[in-house]
Amino acid sequence: MATDQLSLTFAALADPTRRAIIARLAEDGEITVNELARPFPLSVQGVSKHLKVLERAGLITRGRAAQQRPSRLQGAPLRDVEDWLERYREIWEGRLDRLERHLEDIQGKAGRDE
Amino acid sequence: MATDQLSLTFAALADPTRRAIIARLAEDGEITVNELARPFPLSVQGVSKHLKVLERAGLITRGRAAQQRPSRLQGAPLRDVEDWLERYREIWEGRLDRLERHLEDIQGKAGRDE
Repeated sequence: MATDQLSLTFAALADPTRRAIIARLAEDGEITVNELARPFPLSVQGVSKHLKVLERAGLITRGRAAQQRPSRLQGAPLRDVEDWLERYREIWEGRLDRLERHLEDIQGKAGRDE
Repeated sequence: MATDQLSLTFAALADPTRRAIIARLAEDGEITVNELARPFPLSVQGVSKHLKVLERAGLITRGRAAQQRPSRLQGAPLRDVEDWLERYREIWEGRLDRLERHLEDIQGKAGRDE
């Protein structure tokens, strides 16, 4: 099992319930596990398992109050994903876009040559 | 097991060897499995397994030539990751950045009021 930080982050994001938890935390800030569990067809235990995966990846931190331990989203792992993605910007912006730019360059040049 | 497209993509990215394969394909374009396997401490069979995960996530397509089947990177799943990340830009750009902007706003306003 891969345990480098970026792999942990990607693995944590590879689940729609965990992404829904992230969306909720981004919206509402600090939320307890009971509040988080409410909109999901999941037990508090089920949500707790997802929170552990998110916490291990550094995507959330949790408060210390024993019963509540409110969760809060952390930006750093998402920024690392962004940094990784940035290397492939040319790829995900699409070859078509590059082709279009190339054609515009050629047309611009042709225009100047007229 | 989650099978939505974005989860498949994140799961495929949650492995350093698969990310290294992506880096190689981004650099060199179309590459056969034999060429891909060379720099890794992995058998051709091992690399083939990783390619299957990447292919299932739509991150690569493979040619039809039976023995070779060269792999090529696809941008669409990475763009979907980027679109997902974009929703959380405020989070990963950091609360500190926002605080700094807020302070700059206040200072700018104070400057104008002088």
